[in-house]
Amino acid sequence: MTATTAIDLNADLGEGFGRWQLTDDEQLLSVVSSANVACGFHAGDAVTMRRVCDLAAERGVTIGAQVSYRDLAGFGRRAMDVPPAELAAEVAYQIGALEVFARAAGARVAYVKPHGALYNRVVHDEEQAGAVIDGVLLADAALPVLGLPGSRLLELARGAGLPAVPEAFADRAYTEEGTLVPRGQAGAVVTDPDAVVERSVRLARLGQVTSHAGSSIEVRARSLCLHGDTPGAVELARRVRRGLEESGVRVEAFA
Amino acid sequence: MTATTAIDLNADLGEGFGRWQLTDDEQLLSVVSSANVACGFHAGDAVTMRRVCDLAAERGVTIGAQVSYRDLAGFGRRAMDVPPAELAAEVAYQIGALEVFARAAGARVAYVKPHGALYNRVVHDEEQAGAVIDGVLLADAALPVLGLPGSRLLELARGAGLPAVPEAFADRAYTEEGTLVPRGQAGAVVTDPDAVVERSVRLARLGQVTSHAGSSIEVRARSLCLHGDTPGAVELARRVRRGLEESGVRVEAFA
Amino acid sequence: MTATTAIDLNADLGEGFGRWQLTDDEQLLSVVSSANVACGFHAGDAVTMRRVCDLAAERGVTIGAQVSYRDLAGFGRRAMDVPPAELAAEVAYQIGALEVFARAAGARVAYVKPHGALYNRVVHDEEQAGAVIDGVLLADAALPVLGLPGSRLLELARGAGLPAVPEAFADRAYTEEGTLVPRGQAGAVVTDPDAVVERSVRLARLGQVTSHAGSSIEVRARSLCLHGDTPGAVELARRVRRGLEESGVRVEAFA
Amino acid sequence: MTATTAIDLNADLGEGFGRWQLTDDEQLLSVVSSANVACGFHAGDAVTMRRVCDLAAERGVTIGAQVSYRDLAGFGRRAMDVPPAELAAEVAYQIGALEVFARAAGARVAYVKPHGALYNRVVHDEEQAGAVIDGVLLADAALPVLGLPGSRLLELARGAGLPAVPEAFADRAYTEEGTLVPRGQAGAVVTDPDAVVERSVRLARLGQVTSHAGSSIEVRARSLCLHGDTPGAVELARRVRRGLEESGVRVEAFA
Repeated sequence: MTATTAIDLNADLGEGFGRWQLTDDEQLLSVVSSANVACGFHAGDAVTMRRVCDLAAERGVTIGAQVSYRDLAGFGRRAMDVPPAELAAEVAYQIGALEVFARAAGARVAYVKPHGALYNRVVHDEEQAGAVIDGVLLADAALPVLGLPGSRLLELARGAGLPAVPEAFADRAYTEEGTLVPRGQAGAVVTDPDAVVERSVRLARLGQVTSHAGSSIEVRARSLCLHGDTPGAVELARRVRRGLEESGVRVEAFA
Repeated sequence: MTATTAIDLNADLGEGFGRWQLTDDEQLLSVVSSANVACGFHAGDAVTMRRVCDLAAERGVTIGAQVSYRDLAGFGRRAMDVPPAELAAEVAYQIGALEVFARAAGARVAYVKPHGALYNRVVHDEEQAGAVIDGVLLADAALPVLGLPGSRLLELARGAGLPAVPEAFADRAYTEEGTLVPRGQAGAVVTDPDAVVERSVRLARLGQVTSHAGSSIEVRARSLCLHGDTPGAVELARRVRRGLEESGVRVEAFA
Repeated sequence: MTATTAIDLNADLGEGFGRWQLTDDEQLLSVVSSANVACGFHAGDAVTMRRVCDLAAERGVTIGAQVSYRDLAGFGRRAMDVPPAELAAEVAYQIGALEVFARAAGARVAYVKPHGALYNRVVHDEEQAGAVIDGVLLADAALPVLGLPGSRLLELARGAGLPAVPEAFADRAYTEEGTLVPRGQAGAVVTDPDAVVERSVRLARLGQVTSHAGSSIEVRARSLCLHGDTPGAVELARRVRRGLEESGVRVEAFA
Repeated sequence: MTATTAIDLNADLGEGFGRWQLTDDEQLLSVVSSANVACGFHAGDAVTMRRVCDLAAERGVTIGAQVSYRDLAGFGRRAMDVPPAELAAEVAYQIGALEVFARAAGARVAYVKPHGALYNRVVHDEEQAGAVIDGVLLADAALPVLGLPGSRLLELARGAGLPAVPEAFADRAYTEEGTLVPRGQAGAVVTDPDAVVERSVRLARLGQVTSHAGSSIEVRARSLCLHGDTPGAVELARRVRRGLEESGVRVEAFA
C-alpha cells in the first residue's frame, strides 16, 4: 500500500479588489495549509495582500504567489497571447510585490501557482510554461511551483531545478487518462459534499480517485485544491479537513 | 569653506509603459549615479523595469524605487486623497515589485523617492508623508528616502530611523526661503544650459544657489535631480556631469 | 401646505466589475424609478452596463449616468485633483459609453449624477463642478444633473441651462443648516428602518426633515437616494417605496 | 480597364495615453481622409479623443472608431479569448464613448475598424468576428466596418446588412493568394518610399498589386491603410497622397 499520511490543502485567497470582496479569507485561513494569494493582476489590492499575509503568518499557513495574466476586467480567465519576455517579467513582478508583505509578516513567499487562464494554458503551452518558469527563476531560483500533474509547467520546473508540486481536485471529475473532465461537460464538478470528502481522503491516502467512467485511477498529488469562491465553500473546506484528519491524514503544507 | 567634493545625480527612468516610451533610459544611465525607476503605478511596465535594472547594475548606477499614486492615466501627477493604510501598502507593493528585478540584476533597491503629485503632497501633508514612511518600513527598515529638504517626508524618515537624503534642482528657481518657485510662475525653470551647469557646480561645492531675488541662499543637498523627459535632457545632463567633474566634484551615488 | 404628491427614488446600480458583484441590480430595479448606472470608471463593466440598461428599460426605470473619477482601485471614493479639461472629457466619455446601451435598450441616458468623491467635491469645488457641467454639455446640452441641494454643481447646472435636480437622503442625519452630518460622526446614518420610512414620507410630502438637533428643517428634493450596497438594502428600499405609496405619494422618475 | 478614380486613406490616430504620445495626429490629419480614433482600450484618453475629433471635423476628415481588446499594457496587440458577449459589449462601449466627442465636434462616428490583435483575430475567428459585428449593431445598425478583404469580419458585416469596406496596405507584401506576407518574414514590409507610392497608385487605379512572387494580383480595396507610428510616417503619407493626386486619383473618405 502506498499510503500518504500527510497532504496539503491549498485555496485561492485575497481575490477581492478594492471595494469588492470575493473570498472569505478569514475563514479559509483557518482551514487550508497553503494560501494562494492574488497579487494584483487578476485580483488582490495591496491592502488585501498585506492583510492575508498577516493572517496567514499568524496561523502558520504557507504563503504562495498566485500569478496571473494582467486582466482585472476578466479576472484572469481569458487566455492571452503574452510574449514570453513580458510574461516572465510580469510573473516576477507579482512575486516581488507579494514578497514584501510576506516578509513584513515574518514569513516568505514559499511557492508559485498560476491562476485561471494561465493555469490552463501552461498545461500544454511550451512557450508560456517556459515564461512562467523564467519569471519564477528571476524571483528566486529555489521556489516550488504548484500545478497540474503531467503539465508542461511542472516538467519545465523540474528541468530548471525547481521543486514541482502536483495537485489534485477532489471536487472535479477525472477521465480515464487522469486529466480533468472539462467544465461544461455533464458531471465535471462533484457537488455532493460527502463524495468530495470521500474522494479527498482516498486521494490523500492512496493517491487514487474514481474516474468518470467508474474505474480507479492513480493521481499523485502533494496538495488538494479547495475552491473558495462558491457558496458553501468554507463549510465544504471544513468538512474536507475534518474528514482527512479523522482518517488519520495530517494536513500540512508541502513547502 | 564648506566644499562638498562629491554629489549624486538622480533622474527618473523607465517612465514608459508598454508601447509608449518617454525617457532615453540607455543614455541617461551613462550620466546619472542614481536611477529612480518607475514601478508600474504611474509608468513602468515589468519588462522596462527589468531592463533598466539590468542596465543600471551593469553600469554601477544605484537603483531606487520611484513610488507613485496608482494613476497611469494621469502619470501620477494628480493629487489623490488615498487613505494612509492603502497608500502605505501601495508604496510597499511597488518597492517589492522592483526588488525582484534589482536582485535578479545582482543589485538591490537602495532608496525610495516619491513621484509627481505624491512628491509634492508629502512636503506638507503629515498623513500621507507618514503613510509613505510606513510603506518604506514595511519593505525595509533601513531604506534611505530621497526628497525635498525641509519636507515632512524627510523629517518623518529621520524620526523613523531611515536615512533622509535631501535633493536640489539645478534647473529650478529658488525663493529666498529656499523653496522652489512654483512652475507656472515666470522664471520658475532655468533654461540656459550654462546657467544650469554653473548652478550645479555651486550647489555641489558650496551648498549654495542664487535665489530668484538674486541673493545667495543655502541649499544642502546630497543629490541633484536631473530631468529626463524634456527635449535636450540627455545633452544637458551630460554637460552637468562634465561641468561637475571638471570642477573637481566627484559624481557618486549617495547610497 | 406644500404637499408633494410624487417623488423619484434613485439608487446606484451596476456597481460590480467583471467577476465582482456589489449591488443586487435585479431586485433594486423593481423598487427605484431612476437607476444611476456605473459607467466603468469606478465600477461597471460593459456587460453589466448593458444588462442593467436592458432591465431598466423593460421595467420603465429611468437611466442615468453615474460618472466618477477614473479609480477602480478606490471605487471612486478618493478625491483627485483632475485638471478641468481632463475631467470634462472623462465625464463626457462615460456618458457616451452608457448611451449606447441605453439606446440599444430602446431608452436613453436621461440624467447625470456624480459618484463618490466627485459627488462630494463638486458641492464646493467651483473648478471641478464646472468641469462636470462642461462634460455634460459636451454630451448633451439638455441633460438634467442630479446632486445635493445648494451645491455648486446644481448652481452651475442651472446657469448653463441644464435642469438641476436636488436629492435628499432619508437615511442620513441633517444639520440645522440643511447639510448632511458627516459620516463618521455619531448618528450620521439613520439605521432604524421605521425612521427611514417615516423620514422618506415627510421629505416627499412636506419637503421637511427633523434635523440632528431635533428641529424641523426644509429640504427641497425631487428625488430620494436609496443605498444599494449595504446588507438589507433591498428590503429597506422596498419598505420606503411601500411607505410612500401607502401615504399617497406616487413614486415616479423626475426625468 | 477598371480604373478607380477615388480612394480613401485611413490611419490610426490618437494612440497616445495621458502623458504618452505616439502618433503625430495634427500632421496626419492633414493627409488622411479617414481617422481611426483609438477609444481608450488599447490607447486613447478622453482628452485626446476629443482633440482628434475636433481637428478631424475641422478638416473634413471622417471619424471611425478603432476598437480593441481591453489591454493598455499590451497596446491591444495580444490576442485574448474574450467571451463573445463581453467582446460585443466592449466594442459597443468604445463606439459610444467616441460618439460623444464626434457629435460635440459636429460630426459622427462613421465607421468601425478593429485594432491590432483583434484585427488579426477576426480575419478567421468566427466567434470573435460575430461578437464585433454584434457590438457594432448594438451601437448603430448602419455603421460600415473596415477590414481585410475576405475576412470573416467583412463577410459577417455584409450578412448583417452593414457596409463592408475592404482595405489594402501599400507598404505590405502580398502572397499569390492575395493575403499579407506575415510580418517577420523577409520582405514583408515594403520600405522604399517610391515603391510604396507606386503601389498605392496601382492599387487605387487598377485594384492590382505585384505579389511577393512577382505576378500581378487583384486586391479590391476602397481604402488604403497608412501607418502613423513609425519614423518618417508623416512624410511617407504625404508622398502617397501627392502621388495619388498627381495620378488623377481623388483622395476621399469612403463613408
